[in-house]
Amino acid sequence: MKAGLTRVLATGTFDLLHPGHLMYLEQSRALGDELVVIVARDANVKHKPRPIIPQDQRLLMVSALEMVDRAILGSESDMFSPIEELKPEIITLGYDQHFDAILLKEELATRGIDAQVVRLEGHDPCPLCSSRVIVAKVLEERCPKRDRSGAKD
Amino acid sequence: MKAGLTRVLATGTFDLLHPGHLMYLEQSRALGDELVVIVARDANVKHKPRPIIPQDQRLLMVSALEMVDRAILGSESDMFSPIEELKPEIITLGYDQHFDAILLKEELATRGIDAQVVRLEGHDPCPLCSSRVIVAKVLEERCPKRDRSGAKD
Repeated sequence: MKAGLTRVLATGTFDLLHPGHLMYLEQSRALGDELVVIVARDANVKHKPRPIIPQDQRLLMVSALEMVDRAILGSESDMFSPIEELKPEIITLGYDQHFDAILLKEELATRGIDAQVVRLEGHDPCPLCSSRVIVAKVLEERCPKRDRSGAKD
Repeated sequence: MKAGLTRVLATGTFDLLHPGHLMYLEQSRALGDELVVIVARDANVKHKPRPIIPQDQRLLMVSALEMVDRAILGSESDMFSPIEELKPEIITLGYDQHFDAILLKEELATRGIDAQVVRLEGHDPCPLCSSRVIVAKVLEERCPKRDRSGAKD
């Protein structure tokens, strides 16, 4: 990274890409000069149903977006190690991401990472701006209704 | 379009974006200097199950790809009218698109559109490189198995 340029880091699962992802990444990119994205590995998605799209495909799709300069998979064992390497000036959190910005900032400080943590607020209302809602629409249209009681969200 | 530059036109539904779409669009872009994409309207998708993602969202997602210079929705009534306006030098067909290249070329000629029609062959083997297969995976994982006999593909 050239001196004086601001590297922004965004993170997420990015399953079934939708405009909510685009908005998060556009807002992130607008905060600096370069946007690097860490895409969560399948094994590390534990707080919601496992992704429909496998990690390598999710990485390919995020890499193809115009506002993304570079995307990489997260670390299998230590989510902070790629952040230590990338040395971003800014780390963005989406409005619905489950990290606590203050705890994250504290952990970064103990690692000597001096990054600003920015929680992005607001998002376009969009009927299918959520991977969960896209999955629900597939089930609504293609999974026979009377038999869907066992479907997870 | 500036003189001497080659405009390439790609078309498709682009439901649930996947790397097969990326490959088609990258190959298309590589044939010229500018890539314009016509995204099919919901009402005009008749040869396969209706899209999961509505047309405006599909358009947004295609527009966000780095190899796409511009994307527009197709015409409601006449698929050739945007082609007449755009005057592409090259129109690409994906390896699995249902158009007949020769019939298409004939119809273009009767409209006075002098575009080369290129059928792109070959594609990366990719387990989820198809909107239909992504839908099938959602059903496989989230729609109870014994009850899926009535699910459409």
